Amino acid sequence: MSPSDLEALLRDLKAGKVEIGEALKRLSAPPFEDLGFAKIDHHRQQRTGLPEVVYGPGKTAAELAKIFESLRGANQTALATRVEEAKAKAAIAAMSPTVQPWARYEAVPRLLHAGPPLVAKTRGTIAVVAAGTSDQPVSEEAARTLEIFGHPVERITDVGVAGLHRLIAVRDRLEASEVVIVVAGMEGALPSVVKGLISRPVIAVPTSVGFGAHFEGVVPLLAMLSSCASGVTVVNVDNGFGAACAAALINTVRG
Amino acid sequence: MSPSDLEALLRDLKAGKVEIGEALKRLSAPPFEDLGFAKIDHHRQQRTGLPEVVYGPGKTAAELAKIFESLRGANQTALATRVEEAKAKAAIAAMSPTVQPWARYEAVPRLLHAGPPLVAKTRGTIAVVAAGTSDQPVSEEAARTLEIFGHPVERITDVGVAGLHRLIAVRDRLEASEVVIVVAGMEGALPSVVKGLISRPVIAVPTSVGFGAHFEGVVPLLAMLSSCASGVTVVNVDNGFGAACAAALINTVRG
Amino acid sequence: MSPSDLEALLRDLKAGKVEIGEALKRLSAPPFEDLGFAKIDHHRQQRTGLPEVVYGPGKTAAELAKIFESLRGANQTALATRVEEAKAKAAIAAMSPTVQPWARYEAVPRLLHAGPPLVAKTRGTIAVVAAGTSDQPVSEEAARTLEIFGHPVERITDVGVAGLHRLIAVRDRLEASEVVIVVAGMEGALPSVVKGLISRPVIAVPTSVGFGAHFEGVVPLLAMLSSCASGVTVVNVDNGFGAACAAALINTVRG
Amino acid sequence: MSPSDLEALLRDLKAGKVEIGEALKRLSAPPFEDLGFAKIDHHRQQRTGLPEVVYGPGKTAAELAKIFESLRGANQTALATRVEEAKAKAAIAAMSPTVQPWARYEAVPRLLHAGPPLVAKTRGTIAVVAAGTSDQPVSEEAARTLEIFGHPVERITDVGVAGLHRLIAVRDRLEASEVVIVVAGMEGALPSVVKGLISRPVIAVPTSVGFGAHFEGVVPLLAMLSSCASGVTVVNVDNGFGAACAAALINTVRG
Amino acid sequence: MSPSDLEALLRDLKAGKVEIGEALKRLSAPPFEDLGFAKIDHHRQQRTGLPEVVYGPGKTAAELAKIFESLRGANQTALATRVEEAKAKAAIAAMSPTVQPWARYEAVPRLLHAGPPLVAKTRGTIAVVAAGTSDQPVSEEAARTLEIFGHPVERITDVGVAGLHRLIAVRDRLEASEVVIVVAGMEGALPSVVKGLISRPVIAVPTSVGFGAHFEGVVPLLAMLSSCASGVTVVNVDNGFGAACAAALINTVRG
Amino acid sequence: MSPSDLEALLRDLKAGKVEIGEALKRLSAPPFEDLGFAKIDHHRQQRTGLPEVVYGPGKTAAELAKIFESLRGANQTALATRVEEAKAKAAIAAMSPTVQPWARYEAVPRLLHAGPPLVAKTRGTIAVVAAGTSDQPVSEEAARTLEIFGHPVERITDVGVAGLHRLIAVRDRLEASEVVIVVAGMEGALPSVVKGLISRPVIAVPTSVGFGAHFEGVVPLLAMLSSCASGVTVVNVDNGFGAACAAALINTVRG
Amino acid sequence: MSPSDLEALLRDLKAGKVEIGEALKRLSAPPFEDLGFAKIDHHRQQRTGLPEVVYGPGKTAAELAKIFESLRGANQTALATRVEEAKAKAAIAAMSPTVQPWARYEAVPRLLHAGPPLVAKTRGTIAVVAAGTSDQPVSEEAARTLEIFGHPVERITDVGVAGLHRLIAVRDRLEASEVVIVVAGMEGALPSVVKGLISRPVIAVPTSVGFGAHFEGVVPLLAMLSSCASGVTVVNVDNGFGAACAAALINTVRG
Amino acid sequence: MSPSDLEALLRDLKAGKVEIGEALKRLSAPPFEDLGFAKIDHHRQQRTGLPEVVYGPGKTAAELAKIFESLRGANQTALATRVEEAKAKAAIAAMSPTVQPWARYEAVPRLLHAGPPLVAKTRGTIAVVAAGTSDQPVSEEAARTLEIFGHPVERITDVGVAGLHRLIAVRDRLEASEVVIVVAGMEGALPSVVKGLISRPVIAVPTSVGFGAHFEGVVPLLAMLSSCASGVTVVNVDNGFGAACAAALINTVRG
Repeated sequence: MSPSDLEALLRDLKAGKVEIGEALKRLSAPPFEDLGFAKIDHHRQQRTGLPEVVYGPGKTAAELAKIFESLRGANQTALATRVEEAKAKAAIAAMSPTVQPWARYEAVPRLLHAGPPLVAKTRGTIAVVAAGTSDQPVSEEAARTLEIFGHPVERITDVGVAGLHRLIAVRDRLEASEVVIVVAGMEGALPSVVKGLISRPVIAVPTSVGFGAHFEGVVPLLAMLSSCASGVTVVNVDNGFGAACAAALINTVRG
Repeated sequence: MSPSDLEALLRDLKAGKVEIGEALKRLSAPPFEDLGFAKIDHHRQQRTGLPEVVYGPGKTAAELAKIFESLRGANQTALATRVEEAKAKAAIAAMSPTVQPWARYEAVPRLLHAGPPLVAKTRGTIAVVAAGTSDQPVSEEAARTLEIFGHPVERITDVGVAGLHRLIAVRDRLEASEVVIVVAGMEGALPSVVKGLISRPVIAVPTSVGFGAHFEGVVPLLAMLSSCASGVTVVNVDNGFGAACAAALINTVRG
Repeated sequence: MSPSDLEALLRDLKAGKVEIGEALKRLSAPPFEDLGFAKIDHHRQQRTGLPEVVYGPGKTAAELAKIFESLRGANQTALATRVEEAKAKAAIAAMSPTVQPWARYEAVPRLLHAGPPLVAKTRGTIAVVAAGTSDQPVSEEAARTLEIFGHPVERITDVGVAGLHRLIAVRDRLEASEVVIVVAGMEGALPSVVKGLISRPVIAVPTSVGFGAHFEGVVPLLAMLSSCASGVTVVNVDNGFGAACAAALINTVRG
Repeated sequence: MSPSDLEALLRDLKAGKVEIGEALKRLSAPPFEDLGFAKIDHHRQQRTGLPEVVYGPGKTAAELAKIFESLRGANQTALATRVEEAKAKAAIAAMSPTVQPWARYEAVPRLLHAGPPLVAKTRGTIAVVAAGTSDQPVSEEAARTLEIFGHPVERITDVGVAGLHRLIAVRDRLEASEVVIVVAGMEGALPSVVKGLISRPVIAVPTSVGFGAHFEGVVPLLAMLSSCASGVTVVNVDNGFGAACAAALINTVRG
Repeated sequence: MSPSDLEALLRDLKAGKVEIGEALKRLSAPPFEDLGFAKIDHHRQQRTGLPEVVYGPGKTAAELAKIFESLRGANQTALATRVEEAKAKAAIAAMSPTVQPWARYEAVPRLLHAGPPLVAKTRGTIAVVAAGTSDQPVSEEAARTLEIFGHPVERITDVGVAGLHRLIAVRDRLEASEVVIVVAGMEGALPSVVKGLISRPVIAVPTSVGFGAHFEGVVPLLAMLSSCASGVTVVNVDNGFGAACAAALINTVRG
Repeated sequence: MSPSDLEALLRDLKAGKVEIGEALKRLSAPPFEDLGFAKIDHHRQQRTGLPEVVYGPGKTAAELAKIFESLRGANQTALATRVEEAKAKAAIAAMSPTVQPWARYEAVPRLLHAGPPLVAKTRGTIAVVAAGTSDQPVSEEAARTLEIFGHPVERITDVGVAGLHRLIAVRDRLEASEVVIVVAGMEGALPSVVKGLISRPVIAVPTSVGFGAHFEGVVPLLAMLSSCASGVTVVNVDNGFGAACAAALINTVRG
Repeated sequence: MSPSDLEALLRDLKAGKVEIGEALKRLSAPPFEDLGFAKIDHHRQQRTGLPEVVYGPGKTAAELAKIFESLRGANQTALATRVEEAKAKAAIAAMSPTVQPWARYEAVPRLLHAGPPLVAKTRGTIAVVAAGTSDQPVSEEAARTLEIFGHPVERITDVGVAGLHRLIAVRDRLEASEVVIVVAGMEGALPSVVKGLISRPVIAVPTSVGFGAHFEGVVPLLAMLSSCASGVTVVNVDNGFGAACAAALINTVRG
Repeated sequence: MSPSDLEALLRDLKAGKVEIGEALKRLSAPPFEDLGFAKIDHHRQQRTGLPEVVYGPGKTAAELAKIFESLRGANQTALATRVEEAKAKAAIAAMSPTVQPWARYEAVPRLLHAGPPLVAKTRGTIAVVAAGTSDQPVSEEAARTLEIFGHPVERITDVGVAGLHRLIAVRDRLEASEVVIVVAGMEGALPSVVKGLISRPVIAVPTSVGFGAHFEGVVPLLAMLSSCASGVTVVNVDNGFGAACAAALINTVRG
């Protein structure tokens, strides 16, 4: 609660416009729904600019279904990440007739969602670049999250540094975007090369695709952090969702 | 060179408006000045949205002076990062009478610069948060870089998670910013906590300040990457400059 | 054997109150039962304040059954940790009719136990906090171990740092406890934030729940060790049992 | 502010016993003093059970002096850790005549403090064990911090596992303590061996003393976390201060 | 496009020998075929001296089949590495009647290829040494790749450093080669020992074969990089293909 | 070939006692049998004091059978380590009627062997200590290898540092041995504690048994290397076989 | 000694052309000069294609001087790497009047040498690329070693991936070389990008120049090993000398 | 105290041959001298086969002098390892006139000792091999420790794997030893190669000498642990003293 909201509330209390019980509730009541195994944060979008999204691993299908009921009951669009196909199907099967028709599972980005895409006031398009075909599950997690959040997406695939001309051929499309997300597992260099060509902020997403002394994505992660091109920031390995969140915040026109 | 620029040039060539020599130069001439030990990229700002900035370590005072001459000669504002005090003074002493009066060294952020601050078309203010007093060299590198790039900065210091009320007290100032940079060495958690309170994009900068199994900043770096709050991106340990570059790009109104 | 006990024994020997054979036995006989594949330490609780508990991995169902027989034969409550479900069922099936009716398997915390809960002289309640739903197998290992050891437990779930208000809402319950155990996989910051709010000792348990450069819990482990809030100590990744042991010792009124 | 305190305040406001300005201040005013470069948390002891203690590195002598003035001005005992000798002397020289006579520097534990020892309501004695002579700077940091916090300390030195009889000879003194802190650099095993002998909680402090593949204390840190004796918790490498804080909380009789 | 080619093209354009459309295409058209999920680089051999080879993991059998169609359609020999047997068979089954008869799968080196071996102008033979039987999948990836690229190969197996006489017995065969590839998992020393015996360049390939603190090949990788014999270069763990590429370039007579 | 053997051979050659062909063979012929996929070193025991033993992983059942035929054909006792049960059975089935009756597989230590135990001239007994029940596969690999090599073994199990009295109870048996092998996964301290009690050389074997930040045995490995008791040497994680080899060499009376 | 040389020697011995003493010496005499603290290998160039070069660290100035005397006494060109300036000057001062006039120290690449450059039969030029100004000590170690070994060198500096046009501008010079050495500390991507542009073998040298989570060159080292461009091999961090050795072997026409 | 000694003592007590006070002392009195900062273990050699040796770092010169007085007072030979030259000189200066004449400092192995060499009943000679000149501080720590312990030593230097003939030339001297210590920093392979040539046990000592991705000796340490030659055991990086202790135990004829 901001200082100005607080002062207004106290004035109302003193003036008798609100009761002590109500003031107490507004001052201390937690704005979340407690399902026992989880506390659903219905005010998260208002506070953080991003809706509450469910992290799939470690939750049962029944728990996912209950969280979706809760979110849809509050008329929110529900989204869960990193959901295995079997669990997603079981969760959909367990949903009530009101919610079930809204539910969709997408296998490549492993997303389960229900409800219409959000409506966002966006500055422009967000480009999502995948270095190679194998990086697409992560790049699709980013791209589909953005679309569900209400942002237009431009997808570009297979533009590794071993054939720079493929990258140069798409430079204009990259420069035309508001933000560029670059997803790469074996090419820690790619975000740096891309940033050297354009004036847009670049968010780099290392992936766990690779072999040998690659440490499941830690090598491209560190290479991206060490690279020379300024204006690149990084999220965790395989965190397409996190990159989408950051890009969405940048691309949103402030209310 | 974009496809449309290329077509225009070829038409002009065919139409005899430009000579082959000139066309060849525009198509192939490298837009940089070669000082032998370095190639100064005078078109970098136009291409990448950020000016060429010199990385200080490994360069002699004489080399820094020459690069500053070259940049000032092209009427650009010169900036070098991570410059030790003695080297900065020697570099200033070696500059020509035209450049020397412009040169300034700032000891805390270790920045050497010459020329007026850039003029930027900005969306708003950028908040730079330092978790503790010891993180200030890095937070000042970010803050001063932003000011030299022409962005207004709001500084906030000593707001670690062990005393959350100090952070909640500045929440409105953070929410009022366009972007928030959070600099922390022992509190990998801080960017996540900050992001949970506000709707702005957060750029996290881990610092090498700490002790024990801290690995000179690698622990807060990884903790920041692993944390739960979406909308946080990360730059390398102690890379206040890099965070400033990313924040500046986000805060710039597109031309 | 303490110096005073030793002196008493020697006096008794000299006075002829005990025989050399008996003295020799009391001085040198190992107070354990040797099953061949394991040596059961029946005096451990008296010596260390904690009962002998069996580490499940690497032991066969038959071996578990034999150890349970030995402990129950000495009238002790038997407990084994990290027991897979199939092995637990086979172990129960292999127990004698005297022991079998006491045996219980709990799947979430993977505990196999037999016998009544211990009776402990406790100072108060122990709070067990799980950052997220996925951390519950570890937090339940802690909570159930404590209950079997005879300590009252207060469970709190899903209070990550991205929504601080959920944590502030339970602060009074935390402060009312004697000790607080905080279990978290993706939120290395949580124990530090909790400790900043209360005056009780906090024991942090990192979990292997996470993704990307998380190293199966090593990142939250190191983040917890590096954090700024004093009064936090740490146990190994996923070691809910170890945290319960330390909390039980702190919560026990000295005999 | 706890729910019951909050309700009382609102009632007083409604009843006109407090003014809106005062209520606002008590609800929102940050209970810290802002020195610009640091925010001094005067209510920390009340909230967390431990006084605000200053982390020395990264602060200038002048800043330390100012913080000591602020704390002494609020009649608190001031303590700073990890202060190099030269900086400590400069800080003392910079203090006002009111504060300076209280200031003491202790070189082995690198502590700077001013003011009388705190008065604590303690359960008993805290044993501080150093495995070898070289571990004493860390064990003294723990022991002196405890004494300044008002706890009686029992010191035991040079009891490594290569000569177990030295440890067995002090077992009774360890068992007589409330908590045992074990400080060891080359003997990750020592806390486990100690815990196997006694019924008290053990807090392990690895130190950076060692050589070869020792990684400045990371090896004993991990060995302590992996060891078999239950009831051991761990703090960061060389963090004698942190161990003292945890031990003090355990040893304090609740108000 | 080289400077001289560029000048020729501009002259032809000016002289009307080529049209603007054609010039534009030759200047900007990307020399690759875009399959949507992949961009096939038909000019790679001309530019880099090595044909485009497909990295198998992360591609479906259908995608492999389509890429093979594209490459064979351009009359190129197709090669894919690290293809699991089941996927290879499915890919072959999915190929058109024109391509299918050319397709072969080799299980030990996990290579799928189609088309005649390339014809190379080679300097001599390339020796491929496997330290042990278990290293053969990697050494065969190198050897077969070289044969498909048109280079003669000499295979040598089971010559570890524990029995140096086995290595000395083949020294003349090694010296007679142009380049020597040494593949070893548990014997990081082998490339160094081999190089000490001969005057040829040695390319070392660590493998993931080993146990204990071997880190899946990282230990031999680092041991190979640290060793004393000059003239050894290294590729990534298990990267037999990469070693073959480097050896092929060295062994090729410049056109 | 030693200098004195060489001189004798040259004299015999000059004196016509041996032919050039024979001398050449003795000087250069490799004393191994080449099976194509492996080179069997029949002189290894004479040269290194230990017989050639086959490392099982990466070899097929057919290859194991062929190597056993070759070794038995030379009247040697064959031994293979780390052989999975199914592979061992297939290998035995593939052996010729002469060799098959000699073949035995032992599941716990995963050893396949054929032929009578070797006869060794030993100094005394070798003690093999396993810290816990879970460490027995590794300790049995050591113990059985020693018995097959002809050395008497004393086995001791479950003597971890959390109950030192169990260890003190077996001290005389340890001191009576010539060498002591200590196998431990969670107790990196055990070899140090054992060495502090006895005057025999101790060989430490870390095992991969453990959890949390244990890194599959790397933590006890490093803890063993860092410990304070002199006279301890270490082999790789789980390398019971290697410890047996070193112990056998120490325990053998020189011929 | 090769099989054919051996047979010839035995025949000569039998035929009485050489004496037993001489044969013994040729068969067993070590072809090195023993200085006590070092064994100088005068036949190394003949055997390995590269001269014996001295590794400077850990040797005193007096030892360096003695080794130089020994090598010059055998009429060889002496070269020592990684020699600090003070030590180099002391070594030169300690040399005899015959050797001293030949001695030269070069500060940037830290090379001490004496004697004329070697004469090599080379295929062509070797390009040595330094990503940035700070990488020049390593690139000069490579370039000067090559020149002393008798190979022509083409130097290229400051061509990082953030400004690709600088690299494309020198592509023809790179393609014209026989081998390309790429030296880079913060741009692990550079060797991959270079190899994608040319058909020559590329040897990558990571440097320890960098900051943050860069691990003194380990990050670019691993990034170079993980990259996608085939035909790149790697040497250890800062090992300009090792890259020069490998490049020299590739560039030498076989005798 | 062994079971038989214990029984004898109890019988003597019962028989009145010893008093209770004396029995108590013999049963419980710690056999060490407590200097406050250290506990000197005068019975260590009898118990562990090795004398108490002082680890120098972290002890002041005055403390070293006092420990030397204590040991010499008990007529023992005193030895301290890793003593810096200045501290050694100050310690010698602080010794009493009785002890001082015995004191010697050796700079290369950094050993301070006082008293005659011990007399050992040895089996034979111990070979100490240093791979390169730079490894000599560590190899001399091993060699001199052995000589002070009373064992004959054979030193061999500069026999790296890049010139195997140098090693083969000393093979007979190695085989003639009882135990071989191999000290190597850049040649993790050397112990394996040595063991492949001889039938003696080999103790490997990695050193911190090296550069690049060498991690101050961790790479040769791990390479030595991973190597293929059986019969090699390893001690910590730079631990020449530890290797000497193990070798001395093996080389001692049992009393």
